[in-house]
Amino acid sequence: MPKNDLLIRSLLRQPVERTPVWMMRQAGRYLPEYRKVREQAGDFLSLCMNPELACEVTMQPLDRYRFDAAILFSDILTIPHAMGLGLHFVEGEGPKFHHPVRHSEDIKALPVPDPEDDLGYVCDAVRLIHKTLDGRVPLIGFSGSPWTLACYMVEGGSSRDFRKVKGLLYEQPQLMHELLEKLTNAVSAYLNAQISAGVEVVMVFDTWGGVLSAEDYQHFSLNYTARIAEKVPQEIPSVLFTKGGGQWLEAMADSGFDGLGLDWTTSITSARHRVGDKVALQGNMDPLTLYASPVVIEQRVERVLRQFGHGSGHVFNLGHGILPDIDPAHVEAMVEAVHKISPQFHRE
Amino acid sequence: MPKNDLLIRSLLRQPVERTPVWMMRQAGRYLPEYRKVREQAGDFLSLCMNPELACEVTMQPLDRYRFDAAILFSDILTIPHAMGLGLHFVEGEGPKFHHPVRHSEDIKALPVPDPEDDLGYVCDAVRLIHKTLDGRVPLIGFSGSPWTLACYMVEGGSSRDFRKVKGLLYEQPQLMHELLEKLTNAVSAYLNAQISAGVEVVMVFDTWGGVLSAEDYQHFSLNYTARIAEKVPQEIPSVLFTKGGGQWLEAMADSGFDGLGLDWTTSITSARHRVGDKVALQGNMDPLTLYASPVVIEQRVERVLRQFGHGSGHVFNLGHGILPDIDPAHVEAMVEAVHKISPQFHRE
Repeated sequence: MPKNDLLIRSLLRQPVERTPVWMMRQAGRYLPEYRKVREQAGDFLSLCMNPELACEVTMQPLDRYRFDAAILFSDILTIPHAMGLGLHFVEGEGPKFHHPVRHSEDIKALPVPDPEDDLGYVCDAVRLIHKTLDGRVPLIGFSGSPWTLACYMVEGGSSRDFRKVKGLLYEQPQLMHELLEKLTNAVSAYLNAQISAGVEVVMVFDTWGGVLSAEDYQHFSLNYTARIAEKVPQEIPSVLFTKGGGQWLEAMADSGFDGLGLDWTTSITSARHRVGDKVALQGNMDPLTLYASPVVIEQRVERVLRQFGHGSGHVFNLGHGILPDIDPAHVEAMVEAVHKISPQFHRE
Repeated sequence: MPKNDLLIRSLLRQPVERTPVWMMRQAGRYLPEYRKVREQAGDFLSLCMNPELACEVTMQPLDRYRFDAAILFSDILTIPHAMGLGLHFVEGEGPKFHHPVRHSEDIKALPVPDPEDDLGYVCDAVRLIHKTLDGRVPLIGFSGSPWTLACYMVEGGSSRDFRKVKGLLYEQPQLMHELLEKLTNAVSAYLNAQISAGVEVVMVFDTWGGVLSAEDYQHFSLNYTARIAEKVPQEIPSVLFTKGGGQWLEAMADSGFDGLGLDWTTSITSARHRVGDKVALQGNMDPLTLYASPVVIEQRVERVLRQFGHGSGHVFNLGHGILPDIDPAHVEAMVEAVHKISPQFHRE
């Protein structure tokens, strides 16, 4: 158990002295020291694939801020890359695949990667970060959700309207299920390998679950993430983040995860009311708040803490990843506000 | 009262023989006859500003499909254009303003347009369409919501993260309220002018309400649209569509509109349960469904109708505007499926 176990206790809804805080994309471009290492690595993917450098950037935000967790520096698309799709990044356009999958034969031919063999660089990075952290704070491992991976794999990259992947879903639902089945096995094995290598919390990013209709979300996304939650050891706290999933919290709360990530559009007051004591909640300040002045940031931090209210079960975070041009001093204002204001919400 | 008053009766939750159907952006680029007129007009804005051509394209989808409503062909940004911001369209980038408003002096200097003087081309188009329709189906008028207009006016166009408008909201909320106040007056006057000219239903498009946090949505969007609902004559049915607003339906149902537009991410079953008999519901098939085959389209239409269930208060629509490269035959499959399947949901 790490010395600072606030995150773990909060996810298990055990009493804490104050609300833990970490930040999605906390190791990232808003930090000048990150940009330096990234330049040294060449490109983003080379940085992910170099365990020493991945460890270095994972540690950077912890040296600057009083965060209560480290998160493995990696990408959500390492699994499709290991499946042979050829991940690469085009400046300003995000991730792309050289070999998208669209047809029955593409999907049937996809191998399920062996994490230690095919994603050894991730396992090595986890081992190195775990050792370097030396129990300072918990290390979070993660993966994209099967549906979110499928979106990128079928579209061949990001998409505005998800035409190709929805076309597959609407026209050939059985084939879509076949792809999701395979990805579910791959994600489960991947997260378990990260756990064996040293991560103490796992998080599933369902970035594109929110583009589905309510019923399709259940069938094509939540059904599969729920199976992943089952396949992760029960003693490892797990978090499911579905961007745009605020309408489906009740179903998500029954899916076997210990915590749910909320984007900023959800009222954390009503979310807590809706999920009761089934799960912890992580979030959910608008990342755009960090453009405001430190005074406003502190007010907004206070608002989120107050909206969650008294007691354990809250992990403070942004409602989405931090944007690359945020002033690092504004992140400090946020973190320090959580440290300063949150203890009052945990007194008996 | 138009001869086909299914839309009006459904919005008032009065009994109907079948579910009415129309489609957001039904007059649009997916129709070859629209593209021809658009070419003739030169650009999109010239088409909006030419009452004869605007009337022609408004009528086109009614000649092709058994739609139960016409919607004024116009743009949501005519008000800021009339305020002097200089609306123009850049191919592939959407609407832009030559003179965005960002500072106190910009906002204080904004005039509230007189609809008959400054937006006479819209009123003329309404009069011409109303006359041409000759009571065939109701004519829907519309406006962008104050918050959505403010988004475009402050950003200067579309935005991925709404940085400038949220910056203003977070840092200078009073100034944001001043802008929204002015826009509320402008929108109310505009919709009332459209009603005087002949529209029989009004709709407010709050395209960007869903990018706000729950509390900010109340303060900066819904508070103002609710005031617009108050200022529209009670006998004119009104609809509020907030894209991404599925989490806030209860509050929206109390805001004075007769109907709520739902995007496709909301379960129309649970929406109906949540709003009770306060409002009608409009929507909400995923626009992407129209890429699928006619057989799948019919199944999906049936699903939405079944999900709403028995009784009045449903207006069939897509959950967002139709995409420009949809096959017109697929729209026919949708419309005919509503005509064929929906009567069973209205039998005693």
